[in-house]
Amino acid sequence: MDPTDSEVACFEAGIKFGSLYHQFAGTPIGLDSADSLATAMAEAIENQPHCEAVTVEIREEALREAIDAADADYVEFTGRFAEVEMRIDYEGVTVETSMRMDGEYPLMAVEDVRAAD
Amino acid sequence: MDPTDSEVACFEAGIKFGSLYHQFAGTPIGLDSADSLATAMAEAIENQPHCEAVTVEIREEALREAIDAADADYVEFTGRFAEVEMRIDYEGVTVETSMRMDGEYPLMAVEDVRAAD
Amino acid sequence: MDPTDSEVACFEAGIKFGSLYHQFAGTPIGLDSADSLATAMAEAIENQPHCEAVTVEIREEALREAIDAADADYVEFTGRFAEVEMRIDYEGVTVETSMRMDGEYPLMAVEDVRAAD
Amino acid sequence: MDPTDSEVACFEAGIKFGSLYHQFAGTPIGLDSADSLATAMAEAIENQPHCEAVTVEIREEALREAIDAADADYVEFTGRFAEVEMRIDYEGVTVETSMRMDGEYPLMAVEDVRAAD
Repeated sequence: MDPTDSEVACFEAGIKFGSLYHQFAGTPIGLDSADSLATAMAEAIENQPHCEAVTVEIREEALREAIDAADADYVEFTGRFAEVEMRIDYEGVTVETSMRMDGEYPLMAVEDVRAAD
Repeated sequence: MDPTDSEVACFEAGIKFGSLYHQFAGTPIGLDSADSLATAMAEAIENQPHCEAVTVEIREEALREAIDAADADYVEFTGRFAEVEMRIDYEGVTVETSMRMDGEYPLMAVEDVRAAD
Repeated sequence: MDPTDSEVACFEAGIKFGSLYHQFAGTPIGLDSADSLATAMAEAIENQPHCEAVTVEIREEALREAIDAADADYVEFTGRFAEVEMRIDYEGVTVETSMRMDGEYPLMAVEDVRAAD
Repeated sequence: MDPTDSEVACFEAGIKFGSLYHQFAGTPIGLDSADSLATAMAEAIENQPHCEAVTVEIREEALREAIDAADADYVEFTGRFAEVEMRIDYEGVTVETSMRMDGEYPLMAVEDVRAAD
């Protein structure tokens, strides 16, 4: 069957998460460069179609622990160093999504799907 | 509202497309290395959860033209050098998706959403 | 033969260029998000060992033309949208490097190699 | 001072390592998809100028342990899952380089620099 507008809206939301994650995974990140990476990630993905808002918050404590454990000044960015929220609007459907830790691993999820009246 | 299984299935499908595109965009690709890149892209993304099948076909004519236009032996991979099909299964919902050229640009789309009886 | 300190310094400089280019190639970039991407690129790569300074300047005119040509709000980042300078220090050897346009293509080059007295 | 041919050859070698690492870091890799990723990495980087030969060998034991530790079917590719060798030829200078584990971390190194007589 052809997808509904809500299903396409969720597909679009997924694209943005995969993009954000795999574009930036592996980027060198230290405590001093974390903010500029978070800002760039959010602004880059907001360029994509139907993407209304992105917030990226670095999980500073997790980052600090990883850097200490590596006895280094930086590590490679991966999903467990960030919490992400995104809002997608597609044909009157608004989708709220997030990436948060689920135990040890980051989990991408659809939080809310809302069609305009 | 909480998402339906079909909406989550479409979200999962989108994640795979964003991942494939942004993981491999920028990879040096020539006529001789196109097949190994296509195979690696498909097999890498098939690792992801709920991803049943991925096929990546290089658009060889477009690749050849770009290489000739650049007067080079290779170019950087981007979406217009591939056609992609993916099948996602999530909680009994099967989603068929594709990336194909829409005029000058690659377009990612949900082709079919099918719930098991 | 084992490499000299100057040769290793140049190897280290090359690593940073390859990293910067291939980490960020493919990132969605528009006129409003160009600055945050440039800052993040510079700060990310400065984390790497022996990397003393990185400046990334977006070639705004080239970016604007590409966006107009695509009839879009953004394009994918690639080397022709930036000029980059980096300084590497390794065991008393300072290497100055750059990425600039050479005709149609970005060229990475070693500008200067200087050993401390 | 302008760089010598040997220094430029080492710079070129570094570019290839940075490219390989940051292009493919974050790629989903499982035991069954490891070989296709290794082949694609080698063939992709061999496209780059002055790059004569690349071999990528997956460190299968390290990969298996990481997958088991994650209680998953795959992990994200990073440098500690591969050993890499590359040969660069530039203006009669041959540079042999490698990436190998140095304790817990992958270390990129110039093994040999050899000018033609």
